[in-house]
Amino acid sequence: MQHRGQEASGIVASDGRELSRHAGTGLVADVFRDREMLSRLPGEHAIGHNRYSTTGPSSAQNVQPLLVETRSGPIAMSHNGNLVNYQSLRQFLENEGSLFRTTSDSELFLHLFAKSKAHDTVARLAEALSMVKGAWSLAILTREGLFAARDPLGFRPLAIGRKEGGWIVASETCALDLLGATYERDVDPGEIVHFTPDGPVSYHLPQTDERAHCIFEFVYFARPDSRVFGEMVDKTRRRLGHLLARHHPAPEGTDFVTAVPDSSNTAALGFAHESGLPFEIALIRNHYVGRTFIEPEQRMRDFGAKVKFNPVSGVLKGKRIVLVDDSIVRGTTLRKLVRLVRNAGAEAVHVRISSPPIIEPCFYGMDFPTREELAAHDQSISDIGRYIEADGLEYLTPEELLAAAPQGEGRGYCTACFTGRYPIPVNGAESIPHPVG
Amino acid sequence: MQHRGQEASGIVASDGRELSRHAGTGLVADVFRDREMLSRLPGEHAIGHNRYSTTGPSSAQNVQPLLVETRSGPIAMSHNGNLVNYQSLRQFLENEGSLFRTTSDSELFLHLFAKSKAHDTVARLAEALSMVKGAWSLAILTREGLFAARDPLGFRPLAIGRKEGGWIVASETCALDLLGATYERDVDPGEIVHFTPDGPVSYHLPQTDERAHCIFEFVYFARPDSRVFGEMVDKTRRRLGHLLARHHPAPEGTDFVTAVPDSSNTAALGFAHESGLPFEIALIRNHYVGRTFIEPEQRMRDFGAKVKFNPVSGVLKGKRIVLVDDSIVRGTTLRKLVRLVRNAGAEAVHVRISSPPIIEPCFYGMDFPTREELAAHDQSISDIGRYIEADGLEYLTPEELLAAAPQGEGRGYCTACFTGRYPIPVNGAESIPHPVG
Amino acid sequence: MQHRGQEASGIVASDGRELSRHAGTGLVADVFRDREMLSRLPGEHAIGHNRYSTTGPSSAQNVQPLLVETRSGPIAMSHNGNLVNYQSLRQFLENEGSLFRTTSDSELFLHLFAKSKAHDTVARLAEALSMVKGAWSLAILTREGLFAARDPLGFRPLAIGRKEGGWIVASETCALDLLGATYERDVDPGEIVHFTPDGPVSYHLPQTDERAHCIFEFVYFARPDSRVFGEMVDKTRRRLGHLLARHHPAPEGTDFVTAVPDSSNTAALGFAHESGLPFEIALIRNHYVGRTFIEPEQRMRDFGAKVKFNPVSGVLKGKRIVLVDDSIVRGTTLRKLVRLVRNAGAEAVHVRISSPPIIEPCFYGMDFPTREELAAHDQSISDIGRYIEADGLEYLTPEELLAAAPQGEGRGYCTACFTGRYPIPVNGAESIPHPVG
Amino acid sequence: MQHRGQEASGIVASDGRELSRHAGTGLVADVFRDREMLSRLPGEHAIGHNRYSTTGPSSAQNVQPLLVETRSGPIAMSHNGNLVNYQSLRQFLENEGSLFRTTSDSELFLHLFAKSKAHDTVARLAEALSMVKGAWSLAILTREGLFAARDPLGFRPLAIGRKEGGWIVASETCALDLLGATYERDVDPGEIVHFTPDGPVSYHLPQTDERAHCIFEFVYFARPDSRVFGEMVDKTRRRLGHLLARHHPAPEGTDFVTAVPDSSNTAALGFAHESGLPFEIALIRNHYVGRTFIEPEQRMRDFGAKVKFNPVSGVLKGKRIVLVDDSIVRGTTLRKLVRLVRNAGAEAVHVRISSPPIIEPCFYGMDFPTREELAAHDQSISDIGRYIEADGLEYLTPEELLAAAPQGEGRGYCTACFTGRYPIPVNGAESIPHPVG
Repeated sequence: MQHRGQEASGIVASDGRELSRHAGTGLVADVFRDREMLSRLPGEHAIGHNRYSTTGPSSAQNVQPLLVETRSGPIAMSHNGNLVNYQSLRQFLENEGSLFRTTSDSELFLHLFAKSKAHDTVARLAEALSMVKGAWSLAILTREGLFAARDPLGFRPLAIGRKEGGWIVASETCALDLLGATYERDVDPGEIVHFTPDGPVSYHLPQTDERAHCIFEFVYFARPDSRVFGEMVDKTRRRLGHLLARHHPAPEGTDFVTAVPDSSNTAALGFAHESGLPFEIALIRNHYVGRTFIEPEQRMRDFGAKVKFNPVSGVLKGKRIVLVDDSIVRGTTLRKLVRLVRNAGAEAVHVRISSPPIIEPCFYGMDFPTREELAAHDQSISDIGRYIEADGLEYLTPEELLAAAPQGEGRGYCTACFTGRYPIPVNGAESIPHPVG
Repeated sequence: MQHRGQEASGIVASDGRELSRHAGTGLVADVFRDREMLSRLPGEHAIGHNRYSTTGPSSAQNVQPLLVETRSGPIAMSHNGNLVNYQSLRQFLENEGSLFRTTSDSELFLHLFAKSKAHDTVARLAEALSMVKGAWSLAILTREGLFAARDPLGFRPLAIGRKEGGWIVASETCALDLLGATYERDVDPGEIVHFTPDGPVSYHLPQTDERAHCIFEFVYFARPDSRVFGEMVDKTRRRLGHLLARHHPAPEGTDFVTAVPDSSNTAALGFAHESGLPFEIALIRNHYVGRTFIEPEQRMRDFGAKVKFNPVSGVLKGKRIVLVDDSIVRGTTLRKLVRLVRNAGAEAVHVRISSPPIIEPCFYGMDFPTREELAAHDQSISDIGRYIEADGLEYLTPEELLAAAPQGEGRGYCTACFTGRYPIPVNGAESIPHPVG
Repeated sequence: MQHRGQEASGIVASDGRELSRHAGTGLVADVFRDREMLSRLPGEHAIGHNRYSTTGPSSAQNVQPLLVETRSGPIAMSHNGNLVNYQSLRQFLENEGSLFRTTSDSELFLHLFAKSKAHDTVARLAEALSMVKGAWSLAILTREGLFAARDPLGFRPLAIGRKEGGWIVASETCALDLLGATYERDVDPGEIVHFTPDGPVSYHLPQTDERAHCIFEFVYFARPDSRVFGEMVDKTRRRLGHLLARHHPAPEGTDFVTAVPDSSNTAALGFAHESGLPFEIALIRNHYVGRTFIEPEQRMRDFGAKVKFNPVSGVLKGKRIVLVDDSIVRGTTLRKLVRLVRNAGAEAVHVRISSPPIIEPCFYGMDFPTREELAAHDQSISDIGRYIEADGLEYLTPEELLAAAPQGEGRGYCTACFTGRYPIPVNGAESIPHPVG
Repeated sequence: MQHRGQEASGIVASDGRELSRHAGTGLVADVFRDREMLSRLPGEHAIGHNRYSTTGPSSAQNVQPLLVETRSGPIAMSHNGNLVNYQSLRQFLENEGSLFRTTSDSELFLHLFAKSKAHDTVARLAEALSMVKGAWSLAILTREGLFAARDPLGFRPLAIGRKEGGWIVASETCALDLLGATYERDVDPGEIVHFTPDGPVSYHLPQTDERAHCIFEFVYFARPDSRVFGEMVDKTRRRLGHLLARHHPAPEGTDFVTAVPDSSNTAALGFAHESGLPFEIALIRNHYVGRTFIEPEQRMRDFGAKVKFNPVSGVLKGKRIVLVDDSIVRGTTLRKLVRLVRNAGAEAVHVRISSPPIIEPCFYGMDFPTREELAAHDQSISDIGRYIEADGLEYLTPEELLAAAPQGEGRGYCTACFTGRYPIPVNGAESIPHPVG
């Protein structure tokens, strides 16, 4: 699942006695360049992690899974999400004499676990998890095997898969497909699962009916061939395209619909079908450059945007097009793309966004820039349209977005970035997003 | 142009006195990981190379551009193509006392150049080029600046671009687009161009009207947003889809058309438009894995195929589909894809190939496996269809392929891999393909 | 002071706000191969460390100086010596929830410091130091600058030097010489020194008159051009040679005295002068191999011994010699050397050792093997003489050794390895030597 | 034999079919850090090389052994020495179309060998060797096994050893000792030896009675425990000390004799014995720094000198000493040492050099600086004495030096650096010393 984090990668494996770790900064293919690296990780249980972060220089010490020794033996942890009470908890623990080795909020879990006087692993985990606030999907490894846990509001996805008597947890089901495993169910919000030799055993933190699934997973982050929050991403994303076409249709005279590849392909196809307009491939993506959104340095981001897309002028020449994108963060990339297609001969470029304007940062694990850098923070839609030099710009509304997301019992979404309604309060001290696991 | 070769990469730069080189095995991003590497390459002229090869273990010594000292100073060379009289020329030169440092046919140019007694660079180049047979598009660097040259039949593309008084040669025009340069024209078959401070000066090797442009560039190799042999690739590739739909239509009851992404996207769109069928995205490509075709080891190729594609089951479930691919080499990858989409719920999988069966290897620079490994060498189309487990399989014929390729004066194609008609004779001694530049 | 540890090396520097660290396994020249490494360590204060250890595989995480964050800011520490209550203190701290990141006893200092509720750095250090038992000479760095501290019995040396208003602490004065600094005095046993902008300020732990200077520093470990425990090593080491010659003289008919270079040169010269015999160089040391004693793996040690010495046959042929060595640990190297000189033509090889038999391991920082591996643990001197195939073997007695060491107020020696009298009790649980800093 | 070259290192091994090479810049221990490196060098024959050079930045391409393909198969070569007709031969070969890959004179052998039309390896070697002028001791590897060759004047040493039916050639016999091999004889000047399965077979180039053994091998370069030119180095070096004491005795009132360790130890011991004065160790050498003479960059050389020696002040205080050194090149290091010992308390420092003033550069493989940088090129002995701040300075004369060197049939010495009498003429074009193998 390299698409969920390209900054660092690691694996911790257990043979029931010792936990061995190999990790480093860079892509999986860089960190595990030599087969030898994998052979140094013996045993029957393992957890891995791909790190995604943009705040500050990426630091080797923050690479996950974290692995430490406690009085009851080694414990390793992979964390997806972001805690909102990191600063105050860290200060509390440092005053108690805990020595922090990273600047990542994920380390909190380990100190809290180590300090717990409870008598078994699950009880110590529960005690630790009761003190943290925010978004956390966790994979945990001890000599007793694999544990998984998820915060009570269920911000981030976490799926359970099964293969030949073995068990797998993963943020997205595309990882299960790759391994030939079957999707069983999600880890429930507020659930701790211990995968014992006799199968999964469940424990529950104090429960709530509220849910805060990250709706941005459907909009952009998850792969279209994955299932998250119990629903196929592709299906929801196509619905976003349908609703977008219905409520914000292509202007008269549009020749075809095209996508910013590859993240907007599905929504653009949905838009085209609903509109009855042809779908065309007008921008070619260079696969040797990573996803813009995910790269740490602005300078690299600009260079990346330039290398990443090339317009197909034979398709664009003299045409009036609708360009579908999934979201606008800063607007800088989209501005370049509109110019690219126009220089390649497009006569009119109408932009449709398959999500609402992003007006606030995320404190639960999505790595948006500061509020000030968000295009929609202080600009109207028509301002943004002018900035990106489009002949027209329309977004889905928050209501339309929610209408496209799967409904039903046990579902509910966090739309904080689109609405400013934060399911868990965040204060000023926490308002600079921290590195996420 | 990473897509043209992922095995090794290098740059030689000249400041008019010294030529400096940085090169290594791996992707461009690996070889030039540190900015520092680039800063060690001073001067106003430079040539680069991405190496693409599958025969034998890739060797550091074969990385291009090659750089040597001659009595008239340093010379560096990048070669795209493959020579057919390498073995006999090398034997001749070794008998004369030449010491070879690589196992690459590209080194021949340098020895022949060094041995020429002619009085200037162009004359020495011309003398060297008159002795080699095969496919060669060359970029050459000496203290006198940049030279380009192309074999008399024009097997491989070579475009000239211009930007603010500077000149660029590149295999494909997408490289010019990236740099904001304008496409001027191709290097003519049999032409040597010297880019002097006063502009390009042309010299000509003995001429012929015959042409042997590699038609496989249109089918698969070039990027769709490039122009090669004076024509947009996207346009020709879409025509391949049209002709395929016309002569080998989708069966009754087909629900939609889909592509093996990304190389077949354009042909599949062409097929869908011509058929009046919807185009759908049913396979998701993992961008963190390189192009199957280009990876050196079989083991990696299999693993790559597995990681590379994931079916979108929501789209496929219960559907009768046409899957368009650009070509079949061994058939192993396509067989896996047909299984993937069938397991994801497709009810019928009809495969359409936008080129004819590949029945013979290429000796001019396309890295096909040996004759025995080619699926179509000794199997009928229906055999192959059974092997890949498709409900139906149809190919374009060589005549249909040629009809789709751009016609007109100065055009002519090499179709050796589809027809066995080799424009330059090859004998048994040369029949094992050599590493190509 | 590479001779004090060849396994790993590191530096932490402070600019008064941030502490920066560069460290790694290997020699100083390997770890700081690039000048760039040093330039990444800005500021006016710094501490360094060379690690010396033989137990277990050397681990990157154990490399010093250790650097951690505490509630009062970052603190870094370099430790020379070994603690005897490591196991019980670690268990205590782990029960309290402290997360250990190394397997080195040196980490205890940091956890104890972090847990102290005292109000300033010196008080917190004093509290931490009151809990550890054993040998510790420490260099400590915080935003407040440099601190030094030494255990109350003064096992390991620690000198203070001065240069142009700057202050330096080092295990041996040869480091001061190299920097052009002047030796001021030693850090007193039980003293904590803070080097403030106004000069050193002293604090004292509970005092005792007892001293336990490691006498093995004079015998072997320190460089002859250093001063340790307030006395020149060369002077004491020469006295060892004198006393050895007086009490264990060369047999009649000895042609000359020679040394196992280089550690025994000084004692051998003392022996020769006192005996009135010529001193000869009969063994050549290969300077590209490190000190045998200090290399981690037995296999390397054997290979090292073989590469390290070559006899000068022209000098040895037909001669009766006295070979002086400083000590015998396992006896394997000396056995090889006796064979070497005999095969080179020596007629008689009498060995004299400038220290007593080593009968017990060290728990205070000298990296001897286990009791069972010590040649003198269960063998008589004449047994050892036979084992090393010498024509005669004599040692200094513990009394003679002590007589050669500098006397006077504030002096006293640990001779545990020669006598089994441990100044601080050690129990079985601690009897496997731990890695030392 | 790391002492003969520290800049680069390499091995080529042959299994009778293929020649495999591993080489790189740095010490042997760096280049062959991983055991794995050695395991990649299969076969029964091998040659190695340690490179020693100071002119220009050391370049990876110049690392030996060189390995090339010729029409008769692969050939590898290690060269010790320096050619004086490199420039003209290279120009000739480049005009013939030979492509040079290094800037090392050693490559000439390979081109000349490759161009020879002779019918077997020895004849082709002989033809190549007849064209080069200068100093060359060669180890050569082909599929036929190991060859050794030495120039007709025998500038550089080359010994043959034997071990259990195997044969070894090496510059110095200390390498044979290390391997447990027996010294058989030297490769004769003008001899080519092929080590066949039936033993060594000799061939001879045109012979001369003249000899030009490099006398500097005895003075400094060879290890004292080696035999070169058929004589133990230690014995000759001691004789240098004797003659130095006899003709240039210590002044009245000298307390002791000491050496610049380690290269002058033997001469200083000889001096002390002949004088009846005690020998003392007054300078301690830091073994973690290489030999000054051999390090490439001046900056490193200065730093090296500072780190390398530390005076033993207890020995020097108030003493009048004779300091013996083997030679003076620039005088900068010795000047620092005289200051060091004086600052450590020496009352008088008389310097004695166990060779004559170096007045000219070497063109046969000893890496002296340019004429202008040599202390003795334009300064009298008393000038130099003042420069190094000695209380007195005396050298051996060239006649005394020759008297100390072993005499007899088949012997004769090159003293060009001391006398300017070059056994093979060198002209201006060659007067900048080239990198030597």
